[in-house]
Amino acid sequence: MFLRNAWYVAAWDREIGRQPLARTILGEPLVFYRKADGTAVALEDRCCHRHLPLSMGRIEGDDLRCGYHGLRFDALGHCVEIPGQAQIPPDARIASYPLVERFNWVWIWMGDPARADPALIPNWWWADHPEWACAKPDMIHVACNYQLINDNVLDVTHLVYVHASSIGNPAINDFPATTERQGNLVRLTRWILDRPAPPMYQAAGKFAGNVDRWQIVEHVPPCFSINFAGCADAGTGAPTGNIVDGIELMALSAPTPETERSTHYFFAFPRKFGLNDPALDKVFNVDFVNVFREDVAVLEAQQRAMERNPFAPSISIKVDAAPMAARRVLQGMIDAERPVRLTEPG
Amino acid sequence: MFLRNAWYVAAWDREIGRQPLARTILGEPLVFYRKADGTAVALEDRCCHRHLPLSMGRIEGDDLRCGYHGLRFDALGHCVEIPGQAQIPPDARIASYPLVERFNWVWIWMGDPARADPALIPNWWWADHPEWACAKPDMIHVACNYQLINDNVLDVTHLVYVHASSIGNPAINDFPATTERQGNLVRLTRWILDRPAPPMYQAAGKFAGNVDRWQIVEHVPPCFSINFAGCADAGTGAPTGNIVDGIELMALSAPTPETERSTHYFFAFPRKFGLNDPALDKVFNVDFVNVFREDVAVLEAQQRAMERNPFAPSISIKVDAAPMAARRVLQGMIDAERPVRLTEPG
Amino acid sequence: MFLRNAWYVAAWDREIGRQPLARTILGEPLVFYRKADGTAVALEDRCCHRHLPLSMGRIEGDDLRCGYHGLRFDALGHCVEIPGQAQIPPDARIASYPLVERFNWVWIWMGDPARADPALIPNWWWADHPEWACAKPDMIHVACNYQLINDNVLDVTHLVYVHASSIGNPAINDFPATTERQGNLVRLTRWILDRPAPPMYQAAGKFAGNVDRWQIVEHVPPCFSINFAGCADAGTGAPTGNIVDGIELMALSAPTPETERSTHYFFAFPRKFGLNDPALDKVFNVDFVNVFREDVAVLEAQQRAMERNPFAPSISIKVDAAPMAARRVLQGMIDAERPVRLTEPG
Repeated sequence: MFLRNAWYVAAWDREIGRQPLARTILGEPLVFYRKADGTAVALEDRCCHRHLPLSMGRIEGDDLRCGYHGLRFDALGHCVEIPGQAQIPPDARIASYPLVERFNWVWIWMGDPARADPALIPNWWWADHPEWACAKPDMIHVACNYQLINDNVLDVTHLVYVHASSIGNPAINDFPATTERQGNLVRLTRWILDRPAPPMYQAAGKFAGNVDRWQIVEHVPPCFSINFAGCADAGTGAPTGNIVDGIELMALSAPTPETERSTHYFFAFPRKFGLNDPALDKVFNVDFVNVFREDVAVLEAQQRAMERNPFAPSISIKVDAAPMAARRVLQGMIDAERPVRLTEPG
Repeated sequence: MFLRNAWYVAAWDREIGRQPLARTILGEPLVFYRKADGTAVALEDRCCHRHLPLSMGRIEGDDLRCGYHGLRFDALGHCVEIPGQAQIPPDARIASYPLVERFNWVWIWMGDPARADPALIPNWWWADHPEWACAKPDMIHVACNYQLINDNVLDVTHLVYVHASSIGNPAINDFPATTERQGNLVRLTRWILDRPAPPMYQAAGKFAGNVDRWQIVEHVPPCFSINFAGCADAGTGAPTGNIVDGIELMALSAPTPETERSTHYFFAFPRKFGLNDPALDKVFNVDFVNVFREDVAVLEAQQRAMERNPFAPSISIKVDAAPMAARRVLQGMIDAERPVRLTEPG
Repeated sequence: MFLRNAWYVAAWDREIGRQPLARTILGEPLVFYRKADGTAVALEDRCCHRHLPLSMGRIEGDDLRCGYHGLRFDALGHCVEIPGQAQIPPDARIASYPLVERFNWVWIWMGDPARADPALIPNWWWADHPEWACAKPDMIHVACNYQLINDNVLDVTHLVYVHASSIGNPAINDFPATTERQGNLVRLTRWILDRPAPPMYQAAGKFAGNVDRWQIVEHVPPCFSINFAGCADAGTGAPTGNIVDGIELMALSAPTPETERSTHYFFAFPRKFGLNDPALDKVFNVDFVNVFREDVAVLEAQQRAMERNPFAPSISIKVDAAPMAARRVLQGMIDAERPVRLTEPG
């Protein structure tokens, strides 16, 4: 069960061009391409005639022509030509989906097109701001349900165990996290004061001594998380907002459901330091992606274990507070989309 | 659901010899071999004792011996020896199937053996006639239901889109096709008059100018199609049967169901020109097979799309007339094989 | 359906060390490791928090720590640490399983721990006795139900067909076998008198003429078979127990169910001759394993055939007497573990 009336990241803008791109989102096969003027288009990837994926066809002008019997569809999904006949039946059409391009991502609205308000797209301005550099690595395909990724991002203690060699260190466990909810937003906050920087931060910031480090995650449904992270010399005032010679970075996470069992995991890493440092670019485009791949190994094993025995009991612990709050918010929104009868007729 | 009382092509004669050949047909595992005198045999590929495929056993004289406990079966499927015991129980037998060899194909009857009349085998005499050369390439395994192949062969407009570089050209769409039904035979006829020859025909025929081209498909259930094709200099009388300096070729198609989801696609290409031309032999044995492989890519994608969403709606268009007529004929024959009660008892 | 209250071979002792070993037994994912003092431990391979396999975690002292959120479990499966919180809820525990090491095998009890009596482990003393050499090759994973392996071991006629080049020869079929049942033990006995030795025995024993050969299989549920085998010069008294210049060997078989469809096949080969002969060591560690691999090909094909058509009829023959007796014994024990109501309430 997915939230339909929501924006999802469908692709990096660089992935969509004048060759059809096939991608399944929320279980629906879609085909993406650009019109002659560059406008991105998303259509159902299934000819309404004999079901061949239209992504096997070819782009002609602003339209897409099926590679089997040649039916031609415009960017709104209407069939505009059937070879061998003049009449086009009214049901010769396929679904089309609203798209908006922002932050180099192509966002898709999977629900009622009339409600596709671009203002509902998360305002992730750091990804496109001159005071920030932003690494925008390729999406990772993950064989797990997207909510396991939401859980993962909203729990920062796993860094100690999954990412010990890069961004985790045991100091994290010494400081409690707080979870807040503001409307649909769930915020997790942890400050790790006067402790050594984890390996990757130390490499980036070359800190002389201990640091004050923050881990703040803001999550909004269905799948958008900002992980504010960074550290500065201990005692210089970071917790009060006064960041001196620190490093400020973020992880923007947008895991888009492919199916109930698989996810297109999009993410980007804005940073406010070393903007023109190619070595740092590599840290974020390569090393941080490898950190995410450590999560992928865990997430896919978790999915397999849950599929193997869906009814195995599980306990919850303190670090689940934020993930569980986010799940409750999302489930409420999904439930609200479904027709509910409160009484029997009669 | 398959038509049982029908001949199907089981194999090329060259595929069956003194080593057991395992092949599934209509969902049933079969084993083929030749007796000492060369007669081909088809048996159930499952020992009646503990189910090991007999194709893992060995041929002894005219019989087949199981590779596990040594039960020996004759060419009619009767167990004739059980090591370690003298008595052979009456139910120690496996199914055997009538075979007929014709046109280098081994035909199998999958229904009531008493009804296995060789006269019911399609008379594809062109495949064995001195005035015709006939390419007989290896069978292609296709991961789709065989009726999608019937549909494909009975629609000649797809040549424009699937085979543009070989036997398709847009001129096809300028001329309507007619569909006729004669008993169980469905015939599709299209004449393309005074147009350029498609690339592969032009290479074969070296035509000086435009041609008159024919596409005539005759289909009989459950899966036998003759595609009469060819062209001659425009205006020289081909539509009246007077073929001068033209090229005449055919595709004989016999897609045998392996399962509901996969097919052994047998085909052959008789031609009435360049009988002793090795370059033309290559055109038909290699290039035309590659044309068929273009279909395979489409057919398998279509099958996957239909399995993924079996209830997606579909529209029908004019070119579906012949395929749909053939499906109706076949369904009627399948229905006729099944017991039907018209009234409730009592 | 498996017999729960029974010992099974879980692993060779050499497989378990200070790195977690994941292995599924009776359908349950388990993790094995050794404590600091070398004691072997078996736990459920699934964290009680979010289901990650604990085999992806790390051993700390005598405990196992989950690789996701760091929950730490002791060797009895009790959670002893949850990072970030002091309180450990009482249901924070996973299953643990009794283990006993014997004959270099690690035996696991999958049922009620209170009934895990080591005296119930088969007394396979030949595997650890100075008058016997014992080859202990690696386990083979077989994609079939373990009872097909029980059947295989309890039928010695298949040697003629499956192992003709090594331990089978047609003489086997000339002599009837007898089947006895003593409590839960099923014994199959066959003496092959005054016949040539099969190839592998001849190579080992260099017999001058014919031999008297025995094949005696003793099987106890759920999956333990001893195959006593060997031969001596014909007429020298072997059938009366007087073995002169003969070769005596055994196959100990312990196929442990992984799932209903797959098995960890453990086995060992004690022999009472050529104890310090490295060439013979190779015969048993390599050549005999290859003999077993011939069985594996048959068993996996049989499993596939049975899955493909579970309702295909089958006949039984004389050689099935022992396998069927063993199946009846086992089924009786499995049934006895299940609650049965003999009357309806009321």
